[in-house]
Amino acid sequence: MSTSQYPVNGERLWETLHSLAEIGATAAGGVARVALTDEDRVGRDQFVAWVQELGCAVHVDQMGNLFARREGTDSQRAPVVVGSHLDSQPTGGKYDGAYGVMVGLEVLRVLHDHGISTAAPVEVVSWTNEEGARFPPAMIGSGVYAGAFSLDEGLAAPGVDGTTLGSELARIGYAGDDPCGAPDGAGRRPIGHYIEPHIEQGPILEAAEVTLGAVTGVQGIRWYDVSIEGQSAHAGSTPMEHRADAMVAAARLVCEADEIAARRAPEGRATVGTLSVGTGSRNTVAGSVSLTVDLRHPDAAELEAMHNELLAFAESPAFGRQPSAALSGVSQPSGRSLPQPQITPIWYSPPIVFDPTVVDAVREGALAAGFEPVDITSGAGHDACYVSRVAPTGMLFIPCADGLSHNEAESILPEHATAGAQATLNAVLLLAG
Amino acid sequence: MSTSQYPVNGERLWETLHSLAEIGATAAGGVARVALTDEDRVGRDQFVAWVQELGCAVHVDQMGNLFARREGTDSQRAPVVVGSHLDSQPTGGKYDGAYGVMVGLEVLRVLHDHGISTAAPVEVVSWTNEEGARFPPAMIGSGVYAGAFSLDEGLAAPGVDGTTLGSELARIGYAGDDPCGAPDGAGRRPIGHYIEPHIEQGPILEAAEVTLGAVTGVQGIRWYDVSIEGQSAHAGSTPMEHRADAMVAAARLVCEADEIAARRAPEGRATVGTLSVGTGSRNTVAGSVSLTVDLRHPDAAELEAMHNELLAFAESPAFGRQPSAALSGVSQPSGRSLPQPQITPIWYSPPIVFDPTVVDAVREGALAAGFEPVDITSGAGHDACYVSRVAPTGMLFIPCADGLSHNEAESILPEHATAGAQATLNAVLLLAG
Repeated sequence: MSTSQYPVNGERLWETLHSLAEIGATAAGGVARVALTDEDRVGRDQFVAWVQELGCAVHVDQMGNLFARREGTDSQRAPVVVGSHLDSQPTGGKYDGAYGVMVGLEVLRVLHDHGISTAAPVEVVSWTNEEGARFPPAMIGSGVYAGAFSLDEGLAAPGVDGTTLGSELARIGYAGDDPCGAPDGAGRRPIGHYIEPHIEQGPILEAAEVTLGAVTGVQGIRWYDVSIEGQSAHAGSTPMEHRADAMVAAARLVCEADEIAARRAPEGRATVGTLSVGTGSRNTVAGSVSLTVDLRHPDAAELEAMHNELLAFAESPAFGRQPSAALSGVSQPSGRSLPQPQITPIWYSPPIVFDPTVVDAVREGALAAGFEPVDITSGAGHDACYVSRVAPTGMLFIPCADGLSHNEAESILPEHATAGAQATLNAVLLLAG
Repeated sequence: MSTSQYPVNGERLWETLHSLAEIGATAAGGVARVALTDEDRVGRDQFVAWVQELGCAVHVDQMGNLFARREGTDSQRAPVVVGSHLDSQPTGGKYDGAYGVMVGLEVLRVLHDHGISTAAPVEVVSWTNEEGARFPPAMIGSGVYAGAFSLDEGLAAPGVDGTTLGSELARIGYAGDDPCGAPDGAGRRPIGHYIEPHIEQGPILEAAEVTLGAVTGVQGIRWYDVSIEGQSAHAGSTPMEHRADAMVAAARLVCEADEIAARRAPEGRATVGTLSVGTGSRNTVAGSVSLTVDLRHPDAAELEAMHNELLAFAESPAFGRQPSAALSGVSQPSGRSLPQPQITPIWYSPPIVFDPTVVDAVREGALAAGFEPVDITSGAGHDACYVSRVAPTGMLFIPCADGLSHNEAESILPEHATAGAQATLNAVLLLAG
């Protein structure tokens, strides 16, 4: 249903994606192409070979970030950059990261096929070590590029296998010369606009039966450690009004966190993913419970409000004595006093709002490809998060089956892959002029 | 404040209790006199020596239960029996069990001092292996006596150290000849009335500043294993309405169980003492949670109603979709569907109602001792539970500090110890005529 002037070649894209997926292919149908392993080297080599066939120059910076460049007609303009990452989780899927880079390759191929001249250069980037599976934390390559980490920090990043990122980068032959992450970004390869096509890694597009999502930003995240110190007591001989039951206090906090997010559907998110009892026995009132809370929202003010509501709930002098708002109408035995949760904020990642020019170009590109895009917020981190600090940035999402990712069963539909590539090409043409 | 005709000797009782506590005394001030160990043998020997000083005959049955007998004037009457157990937890306290046997000893001493004749004989019993710490389950001696287990089962009970109860009983010289636990109880030593004085092992009397509790029965108990199978999902990219969050479902169940008991304060009890997440990570929606529920009530119909309410809550088709009664007013995102808990009942111990004649005698004994008793239900198991199956039975509770028991720091006040002994003596005199 493409109305685009220059159609992408969906079959070629699909074949290329699956040809790449053979590098590090796992028996279960996934990919193990972990950063700076031999498989990653072979994947990089393949990418380099493909873009060189198109006459593109390949630039490698000090962090091993790869840039395939197709020149424009206006030497003053910074490039429009498309990309993502070629590395995978140890038991990853075929599309996480790879999709964005292969879409970039398809864009280059269409430009090449039709001999299209763009004013701005067009580059395709693959960022080093996005997954962070071997060299935590995630997104080091784009992080150093954007100044979130120093180059020294990036190269010294210790691998889980006793190596360092810098030594492994040299070993596979991808320690480049282009400056990356100098203070104030001096000498850093310029980016005029950055578009990262990616699988959604969530269920929203599939559930809405929508093909393309124009990513308007990335959720802010707040993480908390929660500790609740009550008192162990005999389950039989201790009346409810004499208990300081850490489990009940924890359960109320879980319900409250859930409601804080549910009140803000569909953007708000709250997750208690871990909970453990200090000394657990089925006939002993729990003396202590620890748990974690993960709150997310794309709007900083809303996330702050969620934070405040969580703390206010736990810190209220009435906690446990009176019913919470959520438990109105439930009478408590007189004298009931649940232990108050001690909530420690341990991390805050502010929401990211993508550049309106790039987001609009993605929307227009999608429409020109024949698809009505929906605005969507990314719930996961991407290289685009760091790049957005230093260049106008946007992302495009396509659906993935069941929202499944970081999993060998990761799956997408060919028509979605094609649609995303077409929208990206259209957006590139808009931005590159 | 005793108005009793025959006062107990509080100082003597206190000294005797602490003399006994030296047998198996631990460095932390507790007692390790585990069933059928050498320490238990020494404790039994001491008890036998004390009662023989009073001219009492000592009878030992096939399970090693010890009966010290003081004859009555009416040979047709079955004895009034006072007692509990001499064995302790591995890191137990000085009073759990020992208090009841030493009160029985003090009763014998007062009867002896004053040359009192009773119509019915008076016996003091120490049941074998009440704690069950070495030979699970608990209360085997009284259990075999009452026919809950066969004699063979009792003697074959395996020790945690590779021994058997029967072999250790023989080793310490307390494998007696008196019949115990014959089918239909034939030949079993008769009991006319049984009174078990005990520390409360809970906080009720202390909190109410009451000295004596007339135990009217023992709570019924229902145990459940609960399994909740949801779906793991990314904490960032999965909207609330797309989640099947096992943790939130578990938290609601914990709150509901709590409320089911709180509605029945002060008798109702609900405890979720253990909860674990299948594969927990702070940024992953919990895919599975398992937990336990312990419900208790002294009234069988109420306990049944609690059971039904718990199951109805979890099995309701609206679970997770609509707010629970407890969460009225909380709007749920449309389509929200929490995974339903699978609740498996694994144990039911029916409530026990003690004999009104014995309970009344305990109440009158307390009043005659100058103390207004409160009715109280036992939340823990005692030998009295089994004995109540075959003989009119009651118990008397005295406070223990902070409700603490099965702990070396177990503590009682001398005036409470004396009051309990006086009330017991008074009750024995009422029942023995």
